[in-house]
Amino acid sequence: MAQAHFGIIGLGTMGRNFLLNIAKHGIASVGYDVDAGKRELLLKEGAGMPLDVGNDLTDFLSKLESPRNIMLLVPAGPIVDSVIGELSPLLAAGDLIIDGGDSHFSDTDRREAELLSKNLGFLGVGVIGSESRGRHGASIMVGGRLDFYERVETALKAAAFDFNGPCLEYLGAGSAGHFVKMVHDGIESALMQLIAEVYDYMRRVLRMNIVLTGKAFAEWNDDELSSYLLAITARILNKYDRETRNPLIDMIVDAAGQNATLKWTSQAAMEFGVPIPTIDAAVSASQISARKLLRQEIAQRFQVPANGYKVLPKADLEEVRDALYCGSILAYEQGFSLLREVSREKSYGLDLEKAAGVWRYSSIIFSSVLEKIRKAYAAEPALRTLLLHEGFSDILYKHGAGLRRVVSSMSSSRIPAAALSASLNYYTSFRTERLPAFLTQAQRDYAGAHKYQRIDKEGTFHTDDWDDPTLSTSK
Amino acid sequence: MAQAHFGIIGLGTMGRNFLLNIAKHGIASVGYDVDAGKRELLLKEGAGMPLDVGNDLTDFLSKLESPRNIMLLVPAGPIVDSVIGELSPLLAAGDLIIDGGDSHFSDTDRREAELLSKNLGFLGVGVIGSESRGRHGASIMVGGRLDFYERVETALKAAAFDFNGPCLEYLGAGSAGHFVKMVHDGIESALMQLIAEVYDYMRRVLRMNIVLTGKAFAEWNDDELSSYLLAITARILNKYDRETRNPLIDMIVDAAGQNATLKWTSQAAMEFGVPIPTIDAAVSASQISARKLLRQEIAQRFQVPANGYKVLPKADLEEVRDALYCGSILAYEQGFSLLREVSREKSYGLDLEKAAGVWRYSSIIFSSVLEKIRKAYAAEPALRTLLLHEGFSDILYKHGAGLRRVVSSMSSSRIPAAALSASLNYYTSFRTERLPAFLTQAQRDYAGAHKYQRIDKEGTFHTDDWDDPTLSTSK
Repeated sequence: MAQAHFGIIGLGTMGRNFLLNIAKHGIASVGYDVDAGKRELLLKEGAGMPLDVGNDLTDFLSKLESPRNIMLLVPAGPIVDSVIGELSPLLAAGDLIIDGGDSHFSDTDRREAELLSKNLGFLGVGVIGSESRGRHGASIMVGGRLDFYERVETALKAAAFDFNGPCLEYLGAGSAGHFVKMVHDGIESALMQLIAEVYDYMRRVLRMNIVLTGKAFAEWNDDELSSYLLAITARILNKYDRETRNPLIDMIVDAAGQNATLKWTSQAAMEFGVPIPTIDAAVSASQISARKLLRQEIAQRFQVPANGYKVLPKADLEEVRDALYCGSILAYEQGFSLLREVSREKSYGLDLEKAAGVWRYSSIIFSSVLEKIRKAYAAEPALRTLLLHEGFSDILYKHGAGLRRVVSSMSSSRIPAAALSASLNYYTSFRTERLPAFLTQAQRDYAGAHKYQRIDKEGTFHTDDWDDPTLSTSK
Repeated sequence: MAQAHFGIIGLGTMGRNFLLNIAKHGIASVGYDVDAGKRELLLKEGAGMPLDVGNDLTDFLSKLESPRNIMLLVPAGPIVDSVIGELSPLLAAGDLIIDGGDSHFSDTDRREAELLSKNLGFLGVGVIGSESRGRHGASIMVGGRLDFYERVETALKAAAFDFNGPCLEYLGAGSAGHFVKMVHDGIESALMQLIAEVYDYMRRVLRMNIVLTGKAFAEWNDDELSSYLLAITARILNKYDRETRNPLIDMIVDAAGQNATLKWTSQAAMEFGVPIPTIDAAVSASQISARKLLRQEIAQRFQVPANGYKVLPKADLEEVRDALYCGSILAYEQGFSLLREVSREKSYGLDLEKAAGVWRYSSIIFSSVLEKIRKAYAAEPALRTLLLHEGFSDILYKHGAGLRRVVSSMSSSRIPAAALSASLNYYTSFRTERLPAFLTQAQRDYAGAHKYQRIDKEGTFHTDDWDDPTLSTSK
């Protein structure tokens, strides 16, 4: 075999499948993992392909052409730093390290700066594609210097190989790839929370049985709401448990698992001052769900009266659909507004059409709405918010009543509607020309002399006689 | 003058007032500021007291008894590090630096570790007391090693001097003081947002005039809701603008100012996995309010129909009061749960009764509810959540209908209710024995083989035939 063009360190399911995809496209490649079993497995799976393994790091490096292209598919966090620390003294100027883990964008910025200062290249690459879906390819979101990307574009395109075509996009400078991947995950959790709340409403307020809820999701999936998540939700609700013959969904514990990265999107949005309340609500909803024992105790104390769920006005099914439709659009909107503002702040040079486009086939959040968003940014790259886009504002205007009705009904019915409420409040706040924030400004001036601005003249003002009774509105 | 017992670097309003308070109590003290004008002002203000200034850092240090006690009242951030960097080489083992700025708790942890390793003492101290209120004392929240605190307790007590008695509390190890101060600020912004939303509802849905809203807040301030914030809100709403003869509140711009630390509480809560959705909602509400021009454009596009605010069911004023009452309790609850969980995580050894107690006279969030919370933790220090406290759960049970009614009405009336909704959803989620999180778990297993737990047996499970039509709920 000739010298390999592309190397991967970390031969888990994804690492092996990437190498097999690349080799299948005729690109000589080499893998390395500390686990000899995984190296052997790769050799077996790749028999007859231009594919080799390194028996140790030096052997691996010797099998790569110069300048080297090395992708890390190891767990995000300190392991990435330790592999980079081991690797970089063995590399030559111009060699390139590609981090394909779920790294925090701030780590990516730091690592790129460190490696560039040593004349080594670095790309931070967000990858969507769970292990079970790795065989059919992945969505690959690249950030870093364009010249490094161009060197590995063909290999990455092969790695991302998919029946529907490769999902690979160069998104911009520095940590753009990891940032876009992070926002993707935030939108994903918001969309899942919205579906869960709508399901809860249909079951507990509309008193629909599971089969009917499954049919509702399946029907919605046939129209402008169609999405991967609706499709799998319909199938999930259609599934019996072999053992108990109950609907399988009824046998599953209602506690979210640990997910350390879930909070990153919200923390970053707060850092950059961008409001993404629906995604924030999904974070706290997930944390509350995980406190299962505490919830049980509290539920005991606050027992709902027998007639507790009978409430007017009930929403009809069409309004429930509209609530999910609008709620979802507003969740995407928050994610894209975050991307837009952070791209400017960090000079990513992000093209939002590309970001929408790369979340295709392999991504859980692919949907008709996302495709519409992609087209909106294609037509109008500088669009500031979907709320100012003609098509989306029409949809919200037309279907917003359903979101209001469902949130109103859930609020009076003791059904949690954290994400739906957050979407609604995001929408109503932005369409409110005068928010009561003036009162907060007055309070801060009263209590702490913070000063305020006036609507009728420039400058900042302080009132030092708030208590003076001679000028009173009640006189 | 004898050697000074206590020194302060940074002679702004607060630094000078602290020194004047300390000297007034007969404790010899010394101040330093790079600005000679401020040094002279202090000497003038403190004439006849045991009070001196240093003309430079060396002079300042030479006037302090050994071991030295030096408090920094300089702006939080890099300036604290630079002053510590300048100071520490000039100090002797056992000297103590006290940071009285609004520092992030993680900086406090780092600084304490660095200084202890050099045999220097460190206390991180949160201080409430805006410049305009500094004359009447402050709330001082101390974190760090108890032996260092005991050395300066008398001086700090003097600095915190208040007509109502000193508000000084040693709260626990490390960054406990700054953490408690940070959570205080988070609760404060949540309470202010709740009041703003209730005001908006009274004005735009209940069509009350400003005088009547002011009267409502004043009345509520007479009963179990009584609080500093309600008192000043009533006064603010009672104030005319001298120039325009309009209510002053109508002349104030509805955009929150920049407040970099507002987000810290939410970011930290996410880091520690604790849900505080009402405080999160206050953060995004403040960010949205600041996007004033964008809001105006969006409002143009989404004009509310003429009959847009006529909605049923309207809440009556008693229900509005109940909504504010329950919403506020739930905002405090989130803050205290955060303190409880983080204290355990970081081994602060925090006494929640003390935390509630230190937020007294000088604090904006002082209220009857807070006093009730203090007593609840005094009686039951291990209380896990106010939702399990008999008194508070009774209040929520009895008055929760008002919160539901108001949120429901606001949601259908296009009035933003971000913080009220978040409080309601926090409450309803915790009292829900089975949340729809099971659906999210199923979706994650379907799409990414994440596995789930079952309600009927131990272990984690994966379904690999979600699509298998032979076992279907619809057959």
